[in-house]
Amino acid sequence: MSGIRQHLHERVIYDKLARLKSESGSHSPSIQTLRQTIPELEIRVDACFLSNPHATDLFMKYLEVEVINAGLLREVLEYYPSQNRVIAAHLAQSIGVPPSNIIVGNGATELIQAVMYHFVHGKVVLPIPTFSPYYEFARPGTDVSYHQLSKARGYALDIEDFARSALSQSASAAILINPNNPTGAYLGIAELRELLERLRTLDVVVVDESFIHFAREDETLTPINLYPLAQMYPNLILVKSMSKDFGVAGARAGYAVMSSERVDVLLADGFLWNSNGIAEYFFSLYSRPEFRQQYESVRRRAVQETVDLQAELSLLPRSRVYPSHGNFVLLELLPGLSSGDLVSALLVRHGIYLRNCDDKIGLQGSYVRVASRGADDNSRIVEALKDVLL
Amino acid sequence: MSGIRQHLHERVIYDKLARLKSESGSHSPSIQTLRQTIPELEIRVDACFLSNPHATDLFMKYLEVEVINAGLLREVLEYYPSQNRVIAAHLAQSIGVPPSNIIVGNGATELIQAVMYHFVHGKVVLPIPTFSPYYEFARPGTDVSYHQLSKARGYALDIEDFARSALSQSASAAILINPNNPTGAYLGIAELRELLERLRTLDVVVVDESFIHFAREDETLTPINLYPLAQMYPNLILVKSMSKDFGVAGARAGYAVMSSERVDVLLADGFLWNSNGIAEYFFSLYSRPEFRQQYESVRRRAVQETVDLQAELSLLPRSRVYPSHGNFVLLELLPGLSSGDLVSALLVRHGIYLRNCDDKIGLQGSYVRVASRGADDNSRIVEALKDVLL
Repeated sequence: MSGIRQHLHERVIYDKLARLKSESGSHSPSIQTLRQTIPELEIRVDACFLSNPHATDLFMKYLEVEVINAGLLREVLEYYPSQNRVIAAHLAQSIGVPPSNIIVGNGATELIQAVMYHFVHGKVVLPIPTFSPYYEFARPGTDVSYHQLSKARGYALDIEDFARSALSQSASAAILINPNNPTGAYLGIAELRELLERLRTLDVVVVDESFIHFAREDETLTPINLYPLAQMYPNLILVKSMSKDFGVAGARAGYAVMSSERVDVLLADGFLWNSNGIAEYFFSLYSRPEFRQQYESVRRRAVQETVDLQAELSLLPRSRVYPSHGNFVLLELLPGLSSGDLVSALLVRHGIYLRNCDDKIGLQGSYVRVASRGADDNSRIVEALKDVLL
Repeated sequence: MSGIRQHLHERVIYDKLARLKSESGSHSPSIQTLRQTIPELEIRVDACFLSNPHATDLFMKYLEVEVINAGLLREVLEYYPSQNRVIAAHLAQSIGVPPSNIIVGNGATELIQAVMYHFVHGKVVLPIPTFSPYYEFARPGTDVSYHQLSKARGYALDIEDFARSALSQSASAAILINPNNPTGAYLGIAELRELLERLRTLDVVVVDESFIHFAREDETLTPINLYPLAQMYPNLILVKSMSKDFGVAGARAGYAVMSSERVDVLLADGFLWNSNGIAEYFFSLYSRPEFRQQYESVRRRAVQETVDLQAELSLLPRSRVYPSHGNFVLLELLPGLSSGDLVSALLVRHGIYLRNCDDKIGLQGSYVRVASRGADDNSRIVEALKDVLL
């Protein structure tokens, strides 16, 4: 294709993408939607999609051997799955939390909605940029006070600042996504504990730890456990998706840890029978030490791959990476580069789909989020970015 | 086994069953729980479980060919399913209701809980005997007024009586399970319409039509469609489980039809991403005319089998059947027979598990509910009952 024709071709796709994105609200158009709407695209790497593909491999291997090949899939789909409390008891073994403090969700989204509906009222302080459902699902009447994270500090949370802001506004609730999405910024356990201590008078502090399996306290990559904090601070609600770290978004599995009184409130009016047969199988698998051991190895692999991806991305010109503890890297484009143009060029020329972050409130500048998709795909992403940015 | 030893053996199992049942609240202990707790039992037919096994066969056949053998199961479980509105649009095609009037549920239980929580306040009139979640999930403060159905009328609803009761108590809500569970009584469309006309001043009338695929207006066995009533009466909420007629309880699929304002209220605070990948596949299948045509044949087969089962059961001594429009038959045991003893004897001697109805409020006497499990298993059930009752 000649330079001009190539440019026109990219322009058309860019316009289609822009339209699709505006129709998708605060989510990116899914790869399925892209394929349907712009069939001329050949998408090789979906680097919008946040998951650990090695964990998906592991889950599918078990499902195939233990359920499908064993002829048990019909049973899983025909009969009623267990109720919330039963699955919570399984999960209690996996994560070392009393079952009465666990509510199992049909995906974390359900629990985010439930927490925002039932427990987050009055004034709530929320750092931005962050994961949009926490402001989208605020109940009408809830006063969401955005706490702008400092770009100069790499959008990392300053606990002094944040606590002061919450207390001075007499907020009843505070929300934190840790590691944060889309920045990847992580507040370590010691600092988080200090923050919770200062916020102990609030009704509720929500910490979404959906990306915690990718975070690192140090070079040992030891799994991080925030549950002891929930024992110490009864106002703490921990929300956890299993879609990111286990790569099973279609199974809809998530959970939250909170005071048993709050679990009782939720179970009194909903969430009774909210796990499907596949999700129940997932949770029963997760309760088995042998599975968890195998998972630990693919978890570390994913963490290492993200670390490597970040190192590679940091060498790119005309851009800047933010240190990430998620399974993705936030890339800021230097002035003069548009994230929409970059996403479009990568899609058209290389079949690589990045998350355009220009809808994220609180991000100052032009950004894309690059999901870590495993070493091979990560190399493709880096090469493509080199081509487009050089 | 000698008579006395057999009797003692039954006694022990009966006690275990009674204990299990009291621990299971208003549901029967599941067959899985039974197998774990009383491993000496050999269960051949689970006639507690309400489903259409032929429909499960049909669904599994499609799933196997189109998803598993086609190598698409990973995709179904790895990626995010579509959101509520998208799946509602699929379903709209299948059932002929505008998408804005449909909310898709993670099973009907979720929607029953949501409806009771959001829309049923004040005084609500509920005929008994009926499906227990409708009183169990009433919000604290809701005043549930039980409307005792007349045993002399076979627990069929007298619309005059019911409307008078609701209006004279200035009820704001009325609830009806049609066909009813566990009685199988069915209120035909003409009468239902008359009832809705009289109750049009109420805030809400909930009609749970989860068993409607098994009901018959006449001998043609034509599918019954209550949706036109929802267009005529905006206070009507129709709730529909897919677990009974399609036999896919583990996929968690259900929906409700209601005013678009009410759909908006629910979607504003929850139910956004509440279908899993398997449920989405089910709903997409259901939107295909070719699948619906095949389903129609297994639906009719299940209806005919229940009609046949009912005819056979009506010949049994020391018992009486209630005419059923569900996929089950309510059997009353004549005085002197205990439902607990009957369930126990059938389990021990024949491996057949019936639903003991002695926890159902509003049933006067001793009852078991016999699920239709397909012609072959139905014959086994009838033979076993003959043996025990003769």
